Amino acid sequence: MHATVMYGAGDVRVEAVPDPIIKLPTDALVRVIGAAICGSDLWPYAARSAEDAPARVGHEFVGVVEDTGREVTTVKKGDLVVAPFAISDGTCQFCQEGLQSSCAHPEAGFWDMVPDEGGQAEAVRVPLADGTLVKLPVAADSALVPSLLTLSDVLGTGHHAAVIAGVSKSTRVTVIGDGAVGLLAVLSARRLGAEQIILMGRHPARVSLGREFGATDIVSTRGDEGIAAVRDLTGGDGTHVVIEAVGTMPAYQQALGVVRRGGVVSRVGAPQYEEAPIGFGSLFRHNLRLAGGPAPVRAYIGELLPEILDGAIAPGRVFDMTVSLDGVVAAYREMADRKVLKTLIKP
Amino acid sequence: MHATVMYGAGDVRVEAVPDPIIKLPTDALVRVIGAAICGSDLWPYAARSAEDAPARVGHEFVGVVEDTGREVTTVKKGDLVVAPFAISDGTCQFCQEGLQSSCAHPEAGFWDMVPDEGGQAEAVRVPLADGTLVKLPVAADSALVPSLLTLSDVLGTGHHAAVIAGVSKSTRVTVIGDGAVGLLAVLSARRLGAEQIILMGRHPARVSLGREFGATDIVSTRGDEGIAAVRDLTGGDGTHVVIEAVGTMPAYQQALGVVRRGGVVSRVGAPQYEEAPIGFGSLFRHNLRLAGGPAPVRAYIGELLPEILDGAIAPGRVFDMTVSLDGVVAAYREMADRKVLKTLIKP
Repeated sequence: MHATVMYGAGDVRVEAVPDPIIKLPTDALVRVIGAAICGSDLWPYAARSAEDAPARVGHEFVGVVEDTGREVTTVKKGDLVVAPFAISDGTCQFCQEGLQSSCAHPEAGFWDMVPDEGGQAEAVRVPLADGTLVKLPVAADSALVPSLLTLSDVLGTGHHAAVIAGVSKSTRVTVIGDGAVGLLAVLSARRLGAEQIILMGRHPARVSLGREFGATDIVSTRGDEGIAAVRDLTGGDGTHVVIEAVGTMPAYQQALGVVRRGGVVSRVGAPQYEEAPIGFGSLFRHNLRLAGGPAPVRAYIGELLPEILDGAIAPGRVFDMTVSLDGVVAAYREMADRKVLKTLIKP
Repeated sequence: MHATVMYGAGDVRVEAVPDPIIKLPTDALVRVIGAAICGSDLWPYAARSAEDAPARVGHEFVGVVEDTGREVTTVKKGDLVVAPFAISDGTCQFCQEGLQSSCAHPEAGFWDMVPDEGGQAEAVRVPLADGTLVKLPVAADSALVPSLLTLSDVLGTGHHAAVIAGVSKSTRVTVIGDGAVGLLAVLSARRLGAEQIILMGRHPARVSLGREFGATDIVSTRGDEGIAAVRDLTGGDGTHVVIEAVGTMPAYQQALGVVRRGGVVSRVGAPQYEEAPIGFGSLFRHNLRLAGGPAPVRAYIGELLPEILDGAIAPGRVFDMTVSLDGVVAAYREMADRKVLKTLIKP
């Protein structure tokens, strides 16, 4: 079969690879019908060393179960399933508490732990299938597949950002970043009733979609100018919640600049830094809180899936390019150049 | 009158100063009957530059109102009052929300904003008296005065640490630091029902008091050894809540080492650092949260005062030295040498 393989910075290829097989009794084989390129795939695409071993790529996919190991009980051949970006067993105490992205099972974790598998491919072996996969109650040719695919990462991640920040009807929210996660954080904050949602972003088509998802205000400036604009929109105080959906130090500093005293900065863009200001002059003086991390999207599917099925939300609108595997190389380039927001791959 | 004045590192003096007077119609004059030396007073005592202008010191005190400005309505001459360590107006939106330590009034803030006033003195002018002072329903010679004095800072701060971390009956807690705030964080976590409270501290008398306040376990080692000990006590997982009541970088790193996946580090020791690890390898990977800041102790007096009055809690047990103003210089030295936990000054 064919699959996407990351070699080095700017060097992603689609090539023939061995067909996946069931290796463990808890595995499932899934024929991919829809996969996505994630903003986080662009980090290795920008910076991966050519000396690293080539690795399969893709952690967002929907597909049809082709085969299952003998211990798999919750999905079966023919089921349409979605795979959260974190592999989890569903039974450990962290999974039971809804923190599947910190599952304690030795096989659990992110897809880069399984370098010979990846979702941007014709098929994929899924470890811990019972804990990881969720059956979808629609046909594989459903028009809802793009929206259902967002349950694997970007919708659940935007939702996570809003939930852990305690967004409610009385909350004002700033969302930093107009990528797919930022836009779906807007949608999620809106779902939870936030009275004001300020989207900080500069890309006209993206902020326009952000408005449709529920943003009440757009701030297209950055740095001190952007901070001043958010302050102006909030009576000088900033917002109770800031969702930081980028992951860079300037985005973190932007968040500190617009958060209200006593408020929370909720980070869901994987930080591209390790050290950052959190002392008296930044977080401490005004009891600012910091939250965030890899979203346990598995925990949220039960709540979000029905709203996709009944049309209340249409998160699949973040896809503005659809390609076959032949188009993947070009799609990475277009996304890296910010010409495309998010690509749907139909292998 | 006489008052405590901080000159430089290791140089604190008690000297004659002008009597305080009412300057603004919102001021009150308070004759101090009990003041405390705070752990945070030891930071300037350790490191203050002799080139800084001398400043009055002391932000924890109980006293009797001697006079009030014409706009003061909630306290009157003769009232016994406690002064929270943050001056606040009680009317701004932050005060109304219970974040008095971030009061928006221009005169609000900490006592170092008022360098010619301080609580370690015979008397003190209190700005924004209506918002700041709380009347105490006991006589000035009450045996409860030491416990009531802790409402000004250390009890409210320990309580804040536990509250913002969401301590409840199902929570395991580690408290880092056996100073007065750490010990009262233990008491506060106990009040809120925490099932396990691990106190990390090395001073025998202090950890002994910690046990009486509710610590279920004591860990007297530090660094990797201390982390391993806490992990051993918690089935390998660490605790849901870590209260960091020291403020140094090693204490922060200790907190990261013992916090459970998905847990929260609650800081109430003023950080002696600005930058610290918060990236993927520290906070982000397992959705660790960070909370804390100067406690809005004013907000907690209504809840905590009745329990002191009825004897349910006796936070005044943290005082293990009592001096007159003549003994203040020696008391600073004893506290800095960790020979004394906390000093009560009876001017």
